[in-house]
Amino acid sequence: MTRTSLKEFNCSLAQAAEVIGDKWTLLILREAFFGTTSFSEFRKNLGVAKTVLSDRLQSLVDHGVLERAPTRPGVDRYTYRLTAAGRDFFPTLITLMQWSDKWVFGPGSEPFCVMDKETMSPVQQVGVQARDGHFLTPRETTFGPGPGANEETREALVSLKPGNRAL
Amino acid sequence: MTRTSLKEFNCSLAQAAEVIGDKWTLLILREAFFGTTSFSEFRKNLGVAKTVLSDRLQSLVDHGVLERAPTRPGVDRYTYRLTAAGRDFFPTLITLMQWSDKWVFGPGSEPFCVMDKETMSPVQQVGVQARDGHFLTPRETTFGPGPGANEETREALVSLKPGNRAL
Repeated sequence: MTRTSLKEFNCSLAQAAEVIGDKWTLLILREAFFGTTSFSEFRKNLGVAKTVLSDRLQSLVDHGVLERAPTRPGVDRYTYRLTAAGRDFFPTLITLMQWSDKWVFGPGSEPFCVMDKETMSPVQQVGVQARDGHFLTPRETTFGPGPGANEETREALVSLKPGNRAL
Repeated sequence: MTRTSLKEFNCSLAQAAEVIGDKWTLLILREAFFGTTSFSEFRKNLGVAKTVLSDRLQSLVDHGVLERAPTRPGVDRYTYRLTAAGRDFFPTLITLMQWSDKWVFGPGSEPFCVMDKETMSPVQQVGVQARDGHFLTPRETTFGPGPGANEETREALVSLKPGNRAL
């Protein structure tokens, strides 16, 4: 069977990929975090084609990531703002920026700096932490079935390579 | 000007989006973290069309995220393994899983569980932290020019909404 949609995967990563697995969508989210709200500003700041922008904004609204509201009553212009679900993509965006800072631009050539407003110090490198707060490498972690695991999830786990198996 | 590529953006997020801003790419990365290495295993586990899989694997190799090596000398079959750069997408993938666990599946219905191998406790919620370790919301952070900022970066920062401005 060849799939064209990820919707039927019982997998959290697949569901998130369905929402933001598109390069323009990620840039639109960046703009939304920068405070951009109008179609024309998104378009100007990103230089993206109207049809693409319109399609991606609609998809973000459909997935509950952005909220659309008329600029003023009776006017056919809208503002787009991050919902609580949208704001929860913040760590994802920061991990992506930090990845490129390390692997594309390299130390000393980072275009942007994300800072704690209170101290104006750069934020920490985002990572996966154990309960006690120490950072974990992928090899120090393993996957197991969650409370919502079904037959498909269990099959996926059985096919994990022994080093990754939660057994 | 309408852009079709993100390559010329002096922005870390755009560069990362160019590498993994595609839904199948994210799923292929998931599989790579699960320990999948061969074309046929990727295909079987994801149910993705051959042409799509082949294109996405090539792109990940081109971007230095996966490393391709012949299965055995003289054989026209390859294995694909995460490079150090590829393993550095681990926090990104975990943030995406955690996003869906919260917003798509909901507490108590998470398909997978990511655990610290040593203690078998679930990993922490990944977030953006200040120097002293406390978690920051997007509103508690701000963006400023990094050492590699250019004219374009500075313009983007000037257009930030006042609440987000590093001034």
